[in-house]
Amino acid sequence: MKDKQPKPGRIIPVPENFLSPADISRRRALKALLAGSAAAVSGAAFSGDESGGKLGVPPWSKSLGKPVGANPYGLPSEFERHVIRRESPGLTTSPHSSVVFTPLQNLFGIITPNGLHFERDHGGRPDIDPSQHRLMINGLVRQPKIYTMDDLLRFPSVSRIHFIECGANTAMEWANVSVPTVQYTHGMLSCAEWTGVMLSTLLDDCGFDRKRAKYILAEGADAPSLTRTVPIEMALDDVMVAYGQNGEMLRPENGYPLRLLVPGVQGVSSVKWLRRIEVGDQPWNTREESLHYSDLMPDGMSRQYTWIQECKSVITSPSGGQKLLDKGYYQITGLAWSGRGRIKRVDVSTDGGRNWRTAELQDPILPKALTRFRIDWHWNGEPALLQSRAVDETGYVQPKMRQLREVRGTRSIYHNNAIQTWKVDPSGDVHNVQV
Amino acid sequence: MKDKQPKPGRIIPVPENFLSPADISRRRALKALLAGSAAAVSGAAFSGDESGGKLGVPPWSKSLGKPVGANPYGLPSEFERHVIRRESPGLTTSPHSSVVFTPLQNLFGIITPNGLHFERDHGGRPDIDPSQHRLMINGLVRQPKIYTMDDLLRFPSVSRIHFIECGANTAMEWANVSVPTVQYTHGMLSCAEWTGVMLSTLLDDCGFDRKRAKYILAEGADAPSLTRTVPIEMALDDVMVAYGQNGEMLRPENGYPLRLLVPGVQGVSSVKWLRRIEVGDQPWNTREESLHYSDLMPDGMSRQYTWIQECKSVITSPSGGQKLLDKGYYQITGLAWSGRGRIKRVDVSTDGGRNWRTAELQDPILPKALTRFRIDWHWNGEPALLQSRAVDETGYVQPKMRQLREVRGTRSIYHNNAIQTWKVDPSGDVHNVQV
Repeated sequence: MKDKQPKPGRIIPVPENFLSPADISRRRALKALLAGSAAAVSGAAFSGDESGGKLGVPPWSKSLGKPVGANPYGLPSEFERHVIRRESPGLTTSPHSSVVFTPLQNLFGIITPNGLHFERDHGGRPDIDPSQHRLMINGLVRQPKIYTMDDLLRFPSVSRIHFIECGANTAMEWANVSVPTVQYTHGMLSCAEWTGVMLSTLLDDCGFDRKRAKYILAEGADAPSLTRTVPIEMALDDVMVAYGQNGEMLRPENGYPLRLLVPGVQGVSSVKWLRRIEVGDQPWNTREESLHYSDLMPDGMSRQYTWIQECKSVITSPSGGQKLLDKGYYQITGLAWSGRGRIKRVDVSTDGGRNWRTAELQDPILPKALTRFRIDWHWNGEPALLQSRAVDETGYVQPKMRQLREVRGTRSIYHNNAIQTWKVDPSGDVHNVQV
Repeated sequence: MKDKQPKPGRIIPVPENFLSPADISRRRALKALLAGSAAAVSGAAFSGDESGGKLGVPPWSKSLGKPVGANPYGLPSEFERHVIRRESPGLTTSPHSSVVFTPLQNLFGIITPNGLHFERDHGGRPDIDPSQHRLMINGLVRQPKIYTMDDLLRFPSVSRIHFIECGANTAMEWANVSVPTVQYTHGMLSCAEWTGVMLSTLLDDCGFDRKRAKYILAEGADAPSLTRTVPIEMALDDVMVAYGQNGEMLRPENGYPLRLLVPGVQGVSSVKWLRRIEVGDQPWNTREESLHYSDLMPDGMSRQYTWIQECKSVITSPSGGQKLLDKGYYQITGLAWSGRGRIKRVDVSTDGGRNWRTAELQDPILPKALTRFRIDWHWNGEPALLQSRAVDETGYVQPKMRQLREVRGTRSIYHNNAIQTWKVDPSGDVHNVQV
């Protein structure tokens, strides 16, 4: 498989210096015979020859490497420098109100490494001194309070693995604008182990008014003071005031030192750089929940407060921009998730939805977390249309694009959870198509 | 709590510019009254004042932040620059055959971020070009083969969350040498989501000799060609040839582009920079499994091939080098793990083992993975001895140091899984002690 973007080290030529001429001719002769693409070698040529012998010893086996701890905080290999977050060219007009997408085509498993978590800011990324940062809780509470980071770190904590998906993920597809890769179609999606204090613990600490409280407002400390309303039932259920991300403190672009985490809900509600929670009795109708993040329907009316990210899935490999180099075996793999709980099943089609087979789900299958699915496929060299369709534990089935459009029209921006199709050409090239 | 190492931003003074003089005096008056340490404020002074008003607005709320995607590959905040891997001063004589420890005292949850995974090398960290890297499988196989990285990436893959612990973790305590922090006592321990091909899949692909195969040898491509023997039952069970670590390709110090992963077994067996697997009918007795990584017993004989990392736990907070700033509520938290499967229970004592209470275990509880435990504690200001004791699903109970010494003497280096004690002084200072 080949990603068309700059990607050194993924397509690997036969290294002539590693094999003797005899081995090379043997390798070439055997290559066509083998089901797999590994080179078969004569046992006699290799066994017991720990130094590499006549096969040539690569330089890193002949001299000491870098000292241990050369990087007190480690970084990826230079050979992986193509695996980065990317902006979609032309998508936004301001670099401060923009997004960089997670390279899902390069990732394995369900955890997104912190360096590759997608970033969506509304006024740039603030650089907050945690010793100066405060969280205030006010409104319908018996005792408004201001917490320092040290205060918050002393509260009882929890850790949970959850995805965050921007409400506008896969937005381009509404209007038949097919961006080329899964990084751009679905890359406003990441998953991490978050640690923090349950919001219910802090609301209790301030003695919130159980009778009158219906909503909370979360407010960020960034320049736009981004605000979002969250219903109190949700706030008291699994919403977290988070400071940890995959074991360490939040990354700056993910809200350092403090963010809200509203599991299963569009990312904008998980307010970053969280500085205030207000308890109230009605929704606030702020800018980012009226002018934006509402769904324009075919009749000209807008749906508002459509929080949940419904059940969705996407094949990450093979996916748009990649190339199948040979016929034969491939493992089709991808991600499934639901804002309503656990993934129950993922079906995969290679013929555009006429036939489906059930994929294998990787344990652990966690609520409101990414779930990795995999299924075997033998590509015969013919054109193929790859699709995945997820079902969550409520029984909800991921819809086709056509089904979504029947209800929502074509002017929506948010909440596109339709089935994604990747077309494989006889050349092996994989493209984003709509069927 | 305070970590004595350089640690800006953890102990937070009251920022006078954030509160009005009236608020400050109110805060000080209320501070003594509150169970928690949060500042209580007048609701009237704050509610509805989204801009910060008279309280002062921090600079990051008044101007645009950094452009989105300022780091295509993200990094921690500058305020977290103290959270790094560290060498234990004087522990090793060569920087190429040394170790840097994971800062467990700073981490949350069970996932170790890739930048902080502990590193133990025997000849430095090689910098391998993946397009030039090969894995050979030879020995008792029908068809020896050489795999490129592309070959391996096409095989069926799996992802699993497992810990890796060096066999020498907590070694200093054998001889009553109490290093000061949990980073140095237990920091050769990390946990990640690993992705790769099951070794059994590759052995099948080469047609290994099911009758004669009793062991495999794994060999690294680093300068010392580090080699380890693994029994075939283990190799066919859950051993993985891994290329992925927390979603991305392995980090260079963790074997990029390929390593063995032998879950539950001392880290040295999870050979990094893996270049060869040989199938054989007896153990190899190589340098790193005879001269080293064997256990010198009181009678002068050595135990060899003691693979499994037995059930173990440690409190990471409060832990050595930290300081409790006030009496009152603390959450005691730590990690438990077992090379034999899942953690079943963790008990915590605050009086040196006379009384035990059962801690809460954080889901998911995965086999051969770290498990986070937590328990509430009210510190009354008296001296305290904090201990944790883990039990795994086999019923094995983590032993006391005295019990271990009765069997193993004092000349061991490896496989110390004894209960760890942290002493809290009336000053709040926390120390490593042996009881």
